Amino acid sequence: MQIAILLYDRFTALDAVGPYETLGRLPDSETVFVAERTGPVRADTGNLAITADRALADVPSPDIVIVPGGPGQTPQMENPTLLNWLRTADAATTWTTSVCTGSLLLAAAGLLRGRRATSHWLALEQLRRFGAEPTGERVVMDGKYVTAAGVSAGIDMGLTLLGTLAGDEVAQSVQLLTEYDPQPPYDAGSPGKAPAHLVEKWRAASHLILS
Amino acid sequence: MQIAILLYDRFTALDAVGPYETLGRLPDSETVFVAERTGPVRADTGNLAITADRALADVPSPDIVIVPGGPGQTPQMENPTLLNWLRTADAATTWTTSVCTGSLLLAAAGLLRGRRATSHWLALEQLRRFGAEPTGERVVMDGKYVTAAGVSAGIDMGLTLLGTLAGDEVAQSVQLLTEYDPQPPYDAGSPGKAPAHLVEKWRAASHLILS
Repeated sequence: MQIAILLYDRFTALDAVGPYETLGRLPDSETVFVAERTGPVRADTGNLAITADRALADVPSPDIVIVPGGPGQTPQMENPTLLNWLRTADAATTWTTSVCTGSLLLAAAGLLRGRRATSHWLALEQLRRFGAEPTGERVVMDGKYVTAAGVSAGIDMGLTLLGTLAGDEVAQSVQLLTEYDPQPPYDAGSPGKAPAHLVEKWRAASHLILS
Repeated sequence: MQIAILLYDRFTALDAVGPYETLGRLPDSETVFVAERTGPVRADTGNLAITADRALADVPSPDIVIVPGGPGQTPQMENPTLLNWLRTADAATTWTTSVCTGSLLLAAAGLLRGRRATSHWLALEQLRRFGAEPTGERVVMDGKYVTAAGVSAGIDMGLTLLGTLAGDEVAQSVQLLTEYDPQPPYDAGSPGKAPAHLVEKWRAASHLILS
């Protein structure tokens, strides 16, 4: 089984690395990082680059596609090469997935019409433009489309899909070996839990964060 | 403030990317990925490479050092270039940190003598060899030394240190923007919670996992 993780300029690194480190441990699978061109692809901070080992054209029919989000997703929503690759790949996938605003790329490719889906909380309502039905859940499965909420939700998505594909014990083993027993020092990880003034502050600045 | 994240062959990607995505958002800081030589450094799966933008020699005195773990840590424990860099850098850091078996590298460099520290649960007892006192906590702060448990614990460490350095609101903002409101599909993230037979299975195979 081939798992393709899409990279593009100014993606958010944890969006990609969360599913890589969990779902990527699927037995008898091969994970490939793909981008329009091979070589290092810089994340949104400018401080990190992950190598795209394969070009899109060389990975035409992965079994699983994972699309991370990040501020760089906005210009990609008008990149025909990337959207066409997503459509063509999706025609053959068993699972098409996203983390964070990666779902907006799937939506822009026309793949989420009539589907329940999620995204980064600041981008959730944008899904409606493309005929998707936004939900506030952290991991949403609708048919073969699996979308995760912002950034770190890709870890939960990866474990969920790993359990579906390989069984509970494999997923529990990966959780144990990655010691995923979260103990955040704050309880501020969603707009319903964070201090209201911070939620308002970032809502007001969302145009800066998402593009 | 300069944050240096160390890379070496066969590191575990999430160990590095968890603190990068949290602590790396520290205002007025610069995060640099460093390795013995610049260029792509391959993670333990072989499927992911992060670019080292700077060589160790070019980053002699970072303010914060972050050392990820991974099976590749074992040979590095006898790499004088890397251990000497850790010692020299540590002499000037305000914080010296690790995730997972990265603490064994700090310990091998002689930096954790008499310190409370943690590591991946499978490697915890090895800390004693180097005069450190292992603890089962997820994030351990002893003076300027901050060590995190396995792989995903680096996210909690990053947020904890971010709160210490920049205040609760900055750390809560990063938690909110990375939507770190964990909902793992299983409760198997530590040896005390996972099914006992899986804990035993991986203990028996630890020599394969850690080297």
